Amino acid sequence: MIAVKLSKLRPLEKKLLKAAESALKNAYNPYTRTTVGAAVLSKEGKIFKGSSFANQSSGSNVCAERAAVLNANTNGFRKIEKLAIFENDSVKGGEPAMPCGICLQFLEELPKISGKDLEIITSNDSKTRIFKTKLSELLPFPYNGSNGKKAKR
Amino acid sequence: MIAVKLSKLRPLEKKLLKAAESALKNAYNPYTRTTVGAAVLSKEGKIFKGSSFANQSSGSNVCAERAAVLNANTNGFRKIEKLAIFENDSVKGGEPAMPCGICLQFLEELPKISGKDLEIITSNDSKTRIFKTKLSELLPFPYNGSNGKKAKR
Amino acid sequence: MIAVKLSKLRPLEKKLLKAAESALKNAYNPYTRTTVGAAVLSKEGKIFKGSSFANQSSGSNVCAERAAVLNANTNGFRKIEKLAIFENDSVKGGEPAMPCGICLQFLEELPKISGKDLEIITSNDSKTRIFKTKLSELLPFPYNGSNGKKAKR
Amino acid sequence: MIAVKLSKLRPLEKKLLKAAESALKNAYNPYTRTTVGAAVLSKEGKIFKGSSFANQSSGSNVCAERAAVLNANTNGFRKIEKLAIFENDSVKGGEPAMPCGICLQFLEELPKISGKDLEIITSNDSKTRIFKTKLSELLPFPYNGSNGKKAKR
Repeated sequence: MIAVKLSKLRPLEKKLLKAAESALKNAYNPYTRTTVGAAVLSKEGKIFKGSSFANQSSGSNVCAERAAVLNANTNGFRKIEKLAIFENDSVKGGEPAMPCGICLQFLEELPKISGKDLEIITSNDSKTRIFKTKLSELLPFPYNGSNGKKAKR
Repeated sequence: MIAVKLSKLRPLEKKLLKAAESALKNAYNPYTRTTVGAAVLSKEGKIFKGSSFANQSSGSNVCAERAAVLNANTNGFRKIEKLAIFENDSVKGGEPAMPCGICLQFLEELPKISGKDLEIITSNDSKTRIFKTKLSELLPFPYNGSNGKKAKR
Repeated sequence: MIAVKLSKLRPLEKKLLKAAESALKNAYNPYTRTTVGAAVLSKEGKIFKGSSFANQSSGSNVCAERAAVLNANTNGFRKIEKLAIFENDSVKGGEPAMPCGICLQFLEELPKISGKDLEIITSNDSKTRIFKTKLSELLPFPYNGSNGKKAKR
Repeated sequence: MIAVKLSKLRPLEKKLLKAAESALKNAYNPYTRTTVGAAVLSKEGKIFKGSSFANQSSGSNVCAERAAVLNANTNGFRKIEKLAIFENDSVKGGEPAMPCGICLQFLEELPKISGKDLEIITSNDSKTRIFKTKLSELLPFPYNGSNGKKAKR
């Protein structure tokens, strides 16, 4: 986990963060002020966006991170190597959002598919605080259960 | 809930079901045999697809229905009026899949947004059994809680 | 779904609703005003309570209905025949709460185990509005998928 | 994360692990072979058990860890300081199970309530491999979002 300045991001990272920012505007939340945008980069260099989607029964909320991966997968690109997160953090202290545990579990499939750790960039809404991290840093000891039987990948 | 023949679907319904079928091929499930494709139709006539995405911790699986809505929303279209579901039902008895309760709860936002009941078409993988139904028929008495405060839609 | 008066509930139903009411006081929610208590009755006549438990990432909230069933199951009683729900509905219009879709899906295991439909009683916090219903009425066309392979119950 | 021998656990830790083991026998899973038992210890020295509960729609599975905490909370004890996990790991390589990301997110409430990090003991089913760890080690950078508004704990 390192704090980086916007100006120090590589062009592709800036582009990915910009996609996450633009996804924020389609986030759906008529209930609370939390909205998030995300974007993922596939091995092939394709970018897919995701916007958070709230629910009256908040247990059914879906985060932007998952929306972005689902969008990429639906379009046939699931070798995801980078994820950018951009949160409207008006009610927080201005720190970039970390993925929730549900998203971390969901994202844990990605290194199995890509063969690489997932790089994560997360920014507050003014881009004055940006962190770079990796999935293995956020979830260092992932669930190692079986989902019924041995995977046949 | 009525059973219909493929030949009796309207052209747009056929197109939507075809999109759901094509989404099936991008479903991700290295763990079990269940894979599903879905597609939604927006008020504006746009179609968005969704493919199911499994997880080693099966509680983090995301169904195709949610993936399709998230994809539409991320692209700025959330007045969803129709949903088609196409399941690879090799391990079942050949009946079309019904959405799970998590998806029903998730989908329950859509009538609030569109102002209309959500029409649902669900087909088995040989298209020999197709049902037409509506969200209000599958979830006739939805959760009416508050998600923290009154919605401000 | 029928509206009933408190005085018309049978003694065991009153006792179950009272248990749900008492479970409300242990509900945990430092984030929003929604709290719920629930109680289930097993075939053997045992009552188990459940209190809702909120989470900073609201997608991880767990409802009282699930808590009550989990408590019964952990104690070795999973032939559940009745469920009572009691919501602190200060922010709503005074109508009894319906279970959310996640709970409906979760509860759907119970008729498979007990061999009977699940009876549901739900009350507002003043007990001036009480509904009696059944799981089959709230979720008339449940998910019929496979969870990986045929169940071996 | 350290590997410990059963004989090196303190008496209370052994008792907690034994409670988790006994909770395993009430785990419900007619679908796959994964079953888990858990137990939590409150600040007051009370132990509460939890058994995993599977669902036909696997996204609605609830893990033993959450069941144990819910049980404790329903009984009025939510200052949880220790958690033990015992998995029937017949289909895995004999390593103790780590909590899934959904559980990690759920458990993240506990240090806020107790004011202390959550200690975790996890064992394989022969007790030949036991790990001691802490929540802060499994989820070092938790979600820091708002759930609608500032918590008022």
